[in-house]
Amino acid sequence: MGSSFEKLTEMFGRFPGIGPRQAKRFVYYLLSQPSSFAGELAKELEQLKRDVAQCTECQRFFRGTGNHCQTCDNSSRDGGLLLIVEKDVDLDAIEKAGVYKGLYFVLGGIVPLLEAAPDTRVRLQTLTALIKKRSTVLREVVLALSATPDGDHTMDVVKEKISSLIPQVPIHGLGRGLSTGSELEYADKETLRSAFEGRK
Amino acid sequence: MGSSFEKLTEMFGRFPGIGPRQAKRFVYYLLSQPSSFAGELAKELEQLKRDVAQCTECQRFFRGTGNHCQTCDNSSRDGGLLLIVEKDVDLDAIEKAGVYKGLYFVLGGIVPLLEAAPDTRVRLQTLTALIKKRSTVLREVVLALSATPDGDHTMDVVKEKISSLIPQVPIHGLGRGLSTGSELEYADKETLRSAFEGRK
Amino acid sequence: MGSSFEKLTEMFGRFPGIGPRQAKRFVYYLLSQPSSFAGELAKELEQLKRDVAQCTECQRFFRGTGNHCQTCDNSSRDGGLLLIVEKDVDLDAIEKAGVYKGLYFVLGGIVPLLEAAPDTRVRLQTLTALIKKRSTVLREVVLALSATPDGDHTMDVVKEKISSLIPQVPIHGLGRGLSTGSELEYADKETLRSAFEGRK
Amino acid sequence: MGSSFEKLTEMFGRFPGIGPRQAKRFVYYLLSQPSSFAGELAKELEQLKRDVAQCTECQRFFRGTGNHCQTCDNSSRDGGLLLIVEKDVDLDAIEKAGVYKGLYFVLGGIVPLLEAAPDTRVRLQTLTALIKKRSTVLREVVLALSATPDGDHTMDVVKEKISSLIPQVPIHGLGRGLSTGSELEYADKETLRSAFEGRK
Repeated sequence: MGSSFEKLTEMFGRFPGIGPRQAKRFVYYLLSQPSSFAGELAKELEQLKRDVAQCTECQRFFRGTGNHCQTCDNSSRDGGLLLIVEKDVDLDAIEKAGVYKGLYFVLGGIVPLLEAAPDTRVRLQTLTALIKKRSTVLREVVLALSATPDGDHTMDVVKEKISSLIPQVPIHGLGRGLSTGSELEYADKETLRSAFEGRK
Repeated sequence: MGSSFEKLTEMFGRFPGIGPRQAKRFVYYLLSQPSSFAGELAKELEQLKRDVAQCTECQRFFRGTGNHCQTCDNSSRDGGLLLIVEKDVDLDAIEKAGVYKGLYFVLGGIVPLLEAAPDTRVRLQTLTALIKKRSTVLREVVLALSATPDGDHTMDVVKEKISSLIPQVPIHGLGRGLSTGSELEYADKETLRSAFEGRK
Repeated sequence: MGSSFEKLTEMFGRFPGIGPRQAKRFVYYLLSQPSSFAGELAKELEQLKRDVAQCTECQRFFRGTGNHCQTCDNSSRDGGLLLIVEKDVDLDAIEKAGVYKGLYFVLGGIVPLLEAAPDTRVRLQTLTALIKKRSTVLREVVLALSATPDGDHTMDVVKEKISSLIPQVPIHGLGRGLSTGSELEYADKETLRSAFEGRK
Repeated sequence: MGSSFEKLTEMFGRFPGIGPRQAKRFVYYLLSQPSSFAGELAKELEQLKRDVAQCTECQRFFRGTGNHCQTCDNSSRDGGLLLIVEKDVDLDAIEKAGVYKGLYFVLGGIVPLLEAAPDTRVRLQTLTALIKKRSTVLREVVLALSATPDGDHTMDVVKEKISSLIPQVPIHGLGRGLSTGSELEYADKETLRSAFEGRK
């Protein structure tokens, strides 16, 4: 096959959740489409970084130009609250739940256990700068991370980094308990304990 | 095959989680064992109801004879608390979590949505009698049911049945939130809302 | 719990495909049934070996008494053909396919790779005796084993054992190819080769 | 988000096996990469149709320019044999199995059951023209399709279309039997029958 065939297979193979076999199916799919399709895809790809900007406050990607996303620019959001998530889709999920009215920060990843250089994985320095800037107005920080070993480790890393900057501000994790669909019989000890303590 | 072959296949097929194909494999397995195995199994089966009694208080099955299980007989357990579970293994799970020090009641099942006769599914009358008997000492009732549609429905049914008997006693459900292992991205709205509200 | 509780959990845990957790659910299931259920199960278990005999020819289990199963006793079956299977349910599956009109032999298991003593796993000596007895009438032997590494190994072991006894008789394995439901894209080389060579 | 964000999500959502959620993750992945990545992907996409040509004989996609792929141009391949596959990767799989030395034709899809217009799904007219052109040299046609209901239906459709054009040429399907890894106990009747008939 032509070098662009191999190159595209290799590039699609780096997409999240895609292995070499499916990457190859993507390229065959593109070949089987009218030739306008790949051209249109290429055009949108080049347009993407022009249409989407990164917020200098929360670091999320957003439509349009300018420095701040709609949430960070929204004066009715509570600037005393900061909720930290791993990635943009997590932020979307929490917005959809409609329960939080403060501001956000997107770490851009998680810190795996045993990672010696957490700074290379998540935006720790940008977060530190943001926390310093807001230290006088912050009343609460929520670390909304997945209930996984890597999520717990990221929580520890971030907490250690920011707690000395805002000693008077509580830093909370999300509540644990039974998720929708969980059966009691298969719940682990930790989940049962949290579910019992969080009864209401 | 002999009638006991078909009869055993049919009986094993009623065991929880066992279909006809696996039930048949069970019978072939028994045939392939030394003939002492089936005899020993039969002996233990006949012994089972002699070894195990049902607690007249919490309705769980327990080793030994007598009316009360070790927990209901344990005077150091807090009789002001009642935790209601679906089945014996759920009670075991909560005991292992080591977080609860009161008494239990085992419903013996759940009430599926659309079930017109809940009394045929769970021990509602026995529970009602127990609640009446303890109404003056009860300080809290916890309904520790699975976070499933049927679990939620069972909670509603039980609550409706007992709340008028003990109007002054709070009846709690388990706390919802992220279970161990849950990823934020895949959590539903309800779980995210509970996790946020239960932050700490 | 009573010792019969633990004993039954342990015994059910030896059933094919059953782990300790499901074994325990079986015992709770038995406890929750009317007390007649366990008694009836015990009765059928004791009856099983009286109702079912093992055929001295093919080694399968069959209804009734006597030495021979219905198939081995059926004079319209072709005694020149012998089809060897791993277990009773495999024999049932082939009978249902309705394609074979000869006699059977049930090995009673497979020989895992690296097993030093194949005789402890399958009925090699009984098979050898049977082959010797029928050596003058046999026209074909079919080894109908699973297309797995252990199945292939068992085929090699059995072939080596019997081929010198009946040098003039062809010993066949089952045909390989696409199974119902197989997609070409995911088929391995060996299956594709067999499927191509077996085209028709 | 910018319109290119939604447009790309929609376009990736049409890729084989990709739903809206994963399509969105793809776009966030692209945003998180250095801006050169999307540009490079766009460049390769536009290059793809220049690097890859479609063979006017077998209809596969191949590296380079010109009308014929390497296989169709290879005079040592047997032009008396034609093997018909659903898609390019199936052709690759058979080449890798190294068992076939004739020429190919890629249908470009399958004909689902109940499809009223098979011509819109597969290259029936192109195939018809090819068969006519080669009718005097063809000695065998093999339909190498998946052993699925849609694969079987496609086989019927193609057979009906071409058999009258080459009445003297046998049209074969792939052999059925146990696939590598299949267990006898779980094989369906049809597979068992084919496996038995194809014994060797």
